[in-house]
Amino acid sequence: MVKKAILLICDGLGDRPIKEFGNLTPLEAAKTPNIDKFAKAAETGVMYTLGRGVTPGSDVAHMALFGYNPYEYYRGRGPIEACGIGIKLEHGDVAFRGNLGTVNTDGLIIDRRAGRITDVKELCEAVDGIEINGIKFIVKAGTAHRAVVVMRGKGLSSNISSIDPKAENAKVKTCVPLDDTPEAKFTAETLNQFTEKSRTILSKHPFNQEREKNGDLVGNIILLRGAGQYEHLQTFYEKYGLKGACVAGGGLYKGIASMFGMDVVDVEGATALPNTNVRNKFSKAVELINGDYDFVFIHVKPTDSLAEDKKPNEKRAFVEKIDDAFAIFNQLNDDTLLVVTADHSTPCEMGRHSADSVPVMFWGSSVRPDNVESFGERACSQGGLGVIEGKDLMPQIQNLLGNIPLYGA
Amino acid sequence: MVKKAILLICDGLGDRPIKEFGNLTPLEAAKTPNIDKFAKAAETGVMYTLGRGVTPGSDVAHMALFGYNPYEYYRGRGPIEACGIGIKLEHGDVAFRGNLGTVNTDGLIIDRRAGRITDVKELCEAVDGIEINGIKFIVKAGTAHRAVVVMRGKGLSSNISSIDPKAENAKVKTCVPLDDTPEAKFTAETLNQFTEKSRTILSKHPFNQEREKNGDLVGNIILLRGAGQYEHLQTFYEKYGLKGACVAGGGLYKGIASMFGMDVVDVEGATALPNTNVRNKFSKAVELINGDYDFVFIHVKPTDSLAEDKKPNEKRAFVEKIDDAFAIFNQLNDDTLLVVTADHSTPCEMGRHSADSVPVMFWGSSVRPDNVESFGERACSQGGLGVIEGKDLMPQIQNLLGNIPLYGA
Repeated sequence: MVKKAILLICDGLGDRPIKEFGNLTPLEAAKTPNIDKFAKAAETGVMYTLGRGVTPGSDVAHMALFGYNPYEYYRGRGPIEACGIGIKLEHGDVAFRGNLGTVNTDGLIIDRRAGRITDVKELCEAVDGIEINGIKFIVKAGTAHRAVVVMRGKGLSSNISSIDPKAENAKVKTCVPLDDTPEAKFTAETLNQFTEKSRTILSKHPFNQEREKNGDLVGNIILLRGAGQYEHLQTFYEKYGLKGACVAGGGLYKGIASMFGMDVVDVEGATALPNTNVRNKFSKAVELINGDYDFVFIHVKPTDSLAEDKKPNEKRAFVEKIDDAFAIFNQLNDDTLLVVTADHSTPCEMGRHSADSVPVMFWGSSVRPDNVESFGERACSQGGLGVIEGKDLMPQIQNLLGNIPLYGA
Repeated sequence: MVKKAILLICDGLGDRPIKEFGNLTPLEAAKTPNIDKFAKAAETGVMYTLGRGVTPGSDVAHMALFGYNPYEYYRGRGPIEACGIGIKLEHGDVAFRGNLGTVNTDGLIIDRRAGRITDVKELCEAVDGIEINGIKFIVKAGTAHRAVVVMRGKGLSSNISSIDPKAENAKVKTCVPLDDTPEAKFTAETLNQFTEKSRTILSKHPFNQEREKNGDLVGNIILLRGAGQYEHLQTFYEKYGLKGACVAGGGLYKGIASMFGMDVVDVEGATALPNTNVRNKFSKAVELINGDYDFVFIHVKPTDSLAEDKKPNEKRAFVEKIDDAFAIFNQLNDDTLLVVTADHSTPCEMGRHSADSVPVMFWGSSVRPDNVESFGERACSQGGLGVIEGKDLMPQIQNLLGNIPLYGA
């Protein structure tokens, strides 16, 4: 009987027929002997992550897959990014994502990314911990020009406007409250004061003086967006009793796993780009599940990004790269359930997410295999699981692990 | 990628096994090489228009298929018939369908259809525009003995009884309020005054005097039923951003399309009867979709009416007539999605609507074909779409057209 589970999510895996592939999808057209070997012994189905007719963003799709109803719990990107960067959020915190940008003395934005500055750690540290009106500002550097800011203290609201005009040669916007509450008014005013104060500090900072000397654009303003107020969430462990780990390259997915209290495990070569080391990720997952963890979430990104770039050949090739690494799962013990699916479809003909279903397969000693012989969109539509939704995924995993309590007698 | 859609609804198409057909349904028993050619390249499924265990009327079924929840928006037949006859309803109007009948001086109904009078245009014009208690009565002739009446003005209610006893040699009923509101009381009283006044006018009308001279029954009373109060509805275009046209023979279907703001396009020979010119209708639909329209709704009626008459042979023959015309869809461009389904089942063994599911198929370049090889009740139950409901139809169309906005990020 299975006692542990690996959940592999291939972002945007589902697709539509590609004429050049004889009307097969990239997944159907790819040579996937290893995945199909597992599919033959698996129970399969198709899944509408958020129900039919909904096109899911990756953030809300993952929330649904882990059993957190996004319509109830989604608070925008700010809190997820903050979690992804390692900030321990507290109930009531308002979190933002943002960029270090360049602003001139007239308040006009010269460059929203400060000349694609590669490291903003020193600049973020210079303004980290500022307190205004009793509110503490936590500022942490992300990758390249990116940063996360968290406002912590009493009486905050996330119902405020963004200060980022999202264009160059435009004025930095004043943050305004989006409702009549004193909380929104207070938060907007306090954020405006922070923007002014941090701009003064950053403008004089030696790191920027050095950049100026070298003819580089300075990072003298923090352009914030995506405000979201964190509310305490039941952790994945509290919800399911499973000790979870996350193996991912993309910050968003690390952030979601971290927000649910999973341990995010770094893997060498996990880049979230087509060059990512899928073998290293799968090997690490097997190591973790054979070790201390009950649940390992693996995320693979390029199936989505290559489809967003409308590159079916590259998407198919990346599926074959996943298949190559898939042989590693032959090392799984008898006590491990392997679930493979996607968060949504990204048809190459569209170059963006769609509401099409995605294939799903459950493999392991406790699973009832069906007659499906390969892992693909149309093959899995004939599977024993039928048509499920994202919210059904964790209950089925918990069922196979024997973790669903009895109702009635 | 598909950008436009044709939706073909064959009324009451679904059926049950017919012993004489070797236990095939009329659709399964019919020779349909053209439809099946499309089915082979389509994604199929079965649909419960209003969910399992609900026997849908054609009006509410069509509302659900177009994404208007009938439990929320259905206001009875009156407003639909009024729209179908070309009346532009205003918010608050109370609309009725009715007949011109014959009543004697004692108020006894001699004939509910005035000797199956074939044209009531002159009679309706004679009472059109009457005003009573500040309420304007709009009266328009329908086909044969049929008419539509709309009450327009302040303070109306549709919660009133019908004056039609639905039997001959019975007294015309007095309209009474069905609740305690002043609106229902006022509407009933005003309608009774209209019935009296119109009877006086009609009785003296030269058209009726001429009929009397010829020994024909006169149309001297308007027997109203199906009161419904119109509320402003979002149009189909507002809801979906699709410019829609309707190709139908039956007044009810034109009325529904018209109520949703679609353009109703007349087609020569479209009679809603078994003699209807299906080829003309399909040709017109192709012409419209290759022209200015994003969405064309085609309705075909006799599959339902022949089953209501318990004529499986004729139903099967009519399906073959549809198949013959279906070859016209070979002219569809690559950008067009074709969806074929029914509004409900009408089993010949019952002679009326049932809650059995109906087959559905989606055909077009963006569709993932499944393994189903023919269009029939049991074949489509194996399809890739699985089991859907009427409310899922437009979202799936909008998904394939790339019109579902992203939720989340």
